[in-house]
Amino acid sequence: MSHNDTIIALATPSGAGAIAIIRISGPTSIVLSSKHFRSVSGKDLAGQKSHTIHLGHIMDGERVLDEVLVSVFKNPNSYTGEDVIEISCHGSPYIQQEIIQLFIRKGCRMALAGEFTLRAFLNGKMDLSQAEAVADLISSENEASHQIAIQQMRGGFSNEIKKLREELLNFASLIELELDFSEEDVEFANRNQFKDLLSRIQQVLKRLIDSFAVGNVLKNGIPVAIVGEPNVGKSTLLNALLNEERALVSEIPGTTRDTVEDEISIGGIGFRFIDTAGIRQTQDVVEGMGIQRTFEKINTAQVILYLISAVEFEEQGTSFKLQIEKLRNKYSSTPLVLVANKEDLLDAEDSAQIKKEIGDVLLLSAKNGVGVEALRSKLLEFVNTGALRNNETLVTNSRHYDALLKALEEVEKVQQGMENGISGDLLAIDIRQALYHFGEITGEISSDDLLGNIFANFCIGK
Amino acid sequence: MSHNDTIIALATPSGAGAIAIIRISGPTSIVLSSKHFRSVSGKDLAGQKSHTIHLGHIMDGERVLDEVLVSVFKNPNSYTGEDVIEISCHGSPYIQQEIIQLFIRKGCRMALAGEFTLRAFLNGKMDLSQAEAVADLISSENEASHQIAIQQMRGGFSNEIKKLREELLNFASLIELELDFSEEDVEFANRNQFKDLLSRIQQVLKRLIDSFAVGNVLKNGIPVAIVGEPNVGKSTLLNALLNEERALVSEIPGTTRDTVEDEISIGGIGFRFIDTAGIRQTQDVVEGMGIQRTFEKINTAQVILYLISAVEFEEQGTSFKLQIEKLRNKYSSTPLVLVANKEDLLDAEDSAQIKKEIGDVLLLSAKNGVGVEALRSKLLEFVNTGALRNNETLVTNSRHYDALLKALEEVEKVQQGMENGISGDLLAIDIRQALYHFGEITGEISSDDLLGNIFANFCIGK
Repeated sequence: MSHNDTIIALATPSGAGAIAIIRISGPTSIVLSSKHFRSVSGKDLAGQKSHTIHLGHIMDGERVLDEVLVSVFKNPNSYTGEDVIEISCHGSPYIQQEIIQLFIRKGCRMALAGEFTLRAFLNGKMDLSQAEAVADLISSENEASHQIAIQQMRGGFSNEIKKLREELLNFASLIELELDFSEEDVEFANRNQFKDLLSRIQQVLKRLIDSFAVGNVLKNGIPVAIVGEPNVGKSTLLNALLNEERALVSEIPGTTRDTVEDEISIGGIGFRFIDTAGIRQTQDVVEGMGIQRTFEKINTAQVILYLISAVEFEEQGTSFKLQIEKLRNKYSSTPLVLVANKEDLLDAEDSAQIKKEIGDVLLLSAKNGVGVEALRSKLLEFVNTGALRNNETLVTNSRHYDALLKALEEVEKVQQGMENGISGDLLAIDIRQALYHFGEITGEISSDDLLGNIFANFCIGK
Repeated sequence: MSHNDTIIALATPSGAGAIAIIRISGPTSIVLSSKHFRSVSGKDLAGQKSHTIHLGHIMDGERVLDEVLVSVFKNPNSYTGEDVIEISCHGSPYIQQEIIQLFIRKGCRMALAGEFTLRAFLNGKMDLSQAEAVADLISSENEASHQIAIQQMRGGFSNEIKKLREELLNFASLIELELDFSEEDVEFANRNQFKDLLSRIQQVLKRLIDSFAVGNVLKNGIPVAIVGEPNVGKSTLLNALLNEERALVSEIPGTTRDTVEDEISIGGIGFRFIDTAGIRQTQDVVEGMGIQRTFEKINTAQVILYLISAVEFEEQGTSFKLQIEKLRNKYSSTPLVLVANKEDLLDAEDSAQIKKEIGDVLLLSAKNGVGVEALRSKLLEFVNTGALRNNETLVTNSRHYDALLKALEEVEKVQQGMENGISGDLLAIDIRQALYHFGEITGEISSDDLLGNIFANFCIGK
């Protein structure tokens, strides 16, 4: 993969729409475009300022391919850091294809997935963790994952890492300098200051590593296992939970409920509802296997929501209570939310009875929305949103998490080494190793394989 | 529907992609955007020149919604003729929705389908037939429909109509002036020149009306009925016909074969293949009904392609020849293309035999592509591509066609009236009527109903 040629791709989603954007980046992007662009004003693209827009026609010889707006971005002030042209054409797949084919015939290459962002990284427009945040941002589906990605893209996370890395690098240089003068037994690096730095780094690393559990859950959605018989009103409840947010977005095409069944957003946080088969006492072997799978699913959940039908409580109350007991014993570390649906069909006496028999039950009517807000609040209680609200840096990427763990290990080795009074040259090796892992996160250290893996997950055109 | 407020919509196809464009048009578009845009350069959007691009963040209070590029277009130099802002954001449906919701909360209105183009029309940026061409352009799927739409969008068709309308209007005014002086028996309008103009108009109208048959077929694709038993290789043949064009486009997502089964592009012209049940001599009533439907389908075709399996010719030759005879008799005005597939399985002697028995048969092998090019050429022969290649104006819109027919009728009434020496006031009425129909095409004459109908077919965001 060369990085010196000029690449082209459709940057907007494929399909028909009002407009589409075709992006061209590389050394010949402006010259090539100006050859196939007939400006309405008669001006040549090549002489235009960066960040200006020009109305005209894309010409294939004398054939008009489309009336377009062309945006000019001159290096280094573009997304990729190269000369970039963006053609805003009519959103017909046929036209998109004709224009892209024209430029490919004239020497452009079809861009690979993520190649524009890869070039931005290679040209120093962003570091690796920022580039990764771009993909996270595009796939963000709720406020939490969006905010984490925006924060990371703006450098919140890598700034912290970079600062620590620089300080550590500084000490590393001093210690390596001492080695040159090893005969003379000098100390350029103040050992006490260095110890302070190491413990500061250790703290930051630990905090970042700890944030992964929260960050990962916020990014990917909180798994909630719903346990309950069929027809207790699960779908109605999910719709009711979703309803408020949906009303807001109903005008906008393409924002309807996600295709991942039962992933919904509550207060900006994603919740993934995991459907399970009902749990009953059973002697039947086949049914027993189904229940085994249910237990496995519940194991992956952070919250268990046990939904019963309030109208069946009189008859089945004992069985319900047995199950609650069972769930509490089996998943003692996972919070359990007890919900009795169909409250609208109960009289006051029955409601009181249920509340008496199951202490912390949440009575609600998914059908007419009564009590749904209380459930929403209850679910949000299980999320540590404090970090998110306080704009704390959260680690959400398992590649970063691994590198942070390795960096911490090396830092602790250095600390150990200093306590044991090991020699400067051994110390220097461990420090370099820690620096290496820091560098992996921000991309100062990277391999073609690593870059290939990261950018293959991008869409084409980004 | 007010046209004085500020409207907003997603202009790119919905779904996730590298980038998405949100378009805002109306009097407050720039002021509103500048309030929620924090430029990297620190400059205020409101003070920026038209056709410039600015990097910054869309802010909802202190929350960063996205890092974006904002394009500024100042009235009248924009698509709609109003102040327009285009926000190029990351292509996440969540972000698109957040930004659009922010602006709706701040007073924008969600744009209706085609409303941006409607405003362009109302603000005199384009006439009605040009606006209609925008929708045609977006839905164009092959070179022919694309070229017709581009031509119409650039005004080729309406310029011709406008010129004639002006000349006619000129004469109408003179004749109406005569009425003011009717006591004095003056003639301001030279009757001979007027007769010349009328016959010129008549000729142009007739040519445009005649072009509808070709234009409509080029725009919508040429219907070809395929008659043939199952398993004669129809799908293989269609794939073979498609193959060459497909190889060119395979790199680009979203350009694969159209979902309309069996619509393919040959030499830039769309062909719609209509599948039919086999035609056989039959006494069976139910089967007879199926065959009746086949005949109805064939009636809508411009070309009949009769496909047989060459290897079955020996056995079924007589039945094949009977069918050819039958098709020729029944559809004497529709060209018939005879194709014998699976030539690869024949020896030279058999081939010669088929050619001898069915004179104008085209022997080919869809499987290995032999003879497919000849079929392509043969199909193109049936298309009058002359007009297209010569950049002649073609009428493709049935609304225009109707108006042209009515205008012609009125023009001929005027001609008739002049020959019969009717009075100037009656003449003036017919001329006005003709002018009315001209005006309908370009939109000088329009009603809310008509505009509603036309723009409802647009996508939202255009």
